[in-house]
Amino acid sequence: MPARQLVLASASPARLRLLRDAGFDPKVVVSGVDERDADPAEPGPLVELLATRKASAVAEQLTGSDAVVVGCDSMLSLDAEVLGKPSTPALARQRWQAMRGREGVLLTGHCVIDVATGRWAAGVAQTVVRFGTPTDDEIDAYVATGEPLGVAGAFTLDGFAAPFVDGIDGDHGNVIGLSLPMMRRLLSELDIEITSLWR
Amino acid sequence: MPARQLVLASASPARLRLLRDAGFDPKVVVSGVDERDADPAEPGPLVELLATRKASAVAEQLTGSDAVVVGCDSMLSLDAEVLGKPSTPALARQRWQAMRGREGVLLTGHCVIDVATGRWAAGVAQTVVRFGTPTDDEIDAYVATGEPLGVAGAFTLDGFAAPFVDGIDGDHGNVIGLSLPMMRRLLSELDIEITSLWR
Repeated sequence: MPARQLVLASASPARLRLLRDAGFDPKVVVSGVDERDADPAEPGPLVELLATRKASAVAEQLTGSDAVVVGCDSMLSLDAEVLGKPSTPALARQRWQAMRGREGVLLTGHCVIDVATGRWAAGVAQTVVRFGTPTDDEIDAYVATGEPLGVAGAFTLDGFAAPFVDGIDGDHGNVIGLSLPMMRRLLSELDIEITSLWR
Repeated sequence: MPARQLVLASASPARLRLLRDAGFDPKVVVSGVDERDADPAEPGPLVELLATRKASAVAEQLTGSDAVVVGCDSMLSLDAEVLGKPSTPALARQRWQAMRGREGVLLTGHCVIDVATGRWAAGVAQTVVRFGTPTDDEIDAYVATGEPLGVAGAFTLDGFAAPFVDGIDGDHGNVIGLSLPMMRRLLSELDIEITSLWR
């Protein structure tokens, strides 16, 4: 039996790379769901809702196939504030000056849909992130790389910010944007073995 | 001032990739230090000793340069047993059957040497690893990828094993083989800013 096609309902290059590194060969189909079109007050339900909207929008386009669609949405929660991507270098700098030496929680909502049966499963994974204490010079150098502007919470673990995050508690892929242990559990609720999707 | 050359005293492709992803462009110089030539009873001192031996052997070859050398050595400690790379598929399978559902500690020794001044700093970073519960079929599929044979503890976070590790407590790069927050602290003991080594 040929492997079923895994479809990533996200334009995030970090999620795509994470899946490829873990042995998958996903097809990317971007959903067009607007991430800002929701109430940011409750990050858990919000990221699950957005992940589900993204996966559903893509699954609809693939009706009739036997694709397996995964959608995700990530946010950083810091002192009851919910932080997406910073819009400007000044805001990225300000965020880091506020985050250093503190802890945040990275929440990623996941939704997996089996297009052939219409069955789906969704959940939120949380990872505690312990920020280090970069100096003002280090923050300036980091912001100058441009990296923080494109990522939820103004940092990512798989790039220039790695030396400035002392540690995490939870799954590291969840911080990058997709938790593979959670994807495995959601697939298993749909009676799909994750290893059957390896390339 | 041109950036000083960072030299990685390790043949590990995972460490090289981790450094490249984080903005460094290290030169690889392999030390030839034999990892088995030491008492495995005390993993903390052992990995620091091996990391220091690797970095020193390479620094000697670079005398007269202004290179910055980093050496590392990793082991998994599980119930007072110290585990390096499994030598056969059967051993890799056996390890996973013993590890699933349990916790281990991944220890990586680090040594950084400023060749120009001869100053050095060393330390060990520890990350708790919470193994998931892959089925026997999943373990067989994982062993068949060949990945576990080449890595300390028979798993790595940046490959096929990712869905089978529920989470970690500590730095994820340390589990892959090099802790960037620790490298930052060791460099700072030598008055070198980590961002000055970015490409």
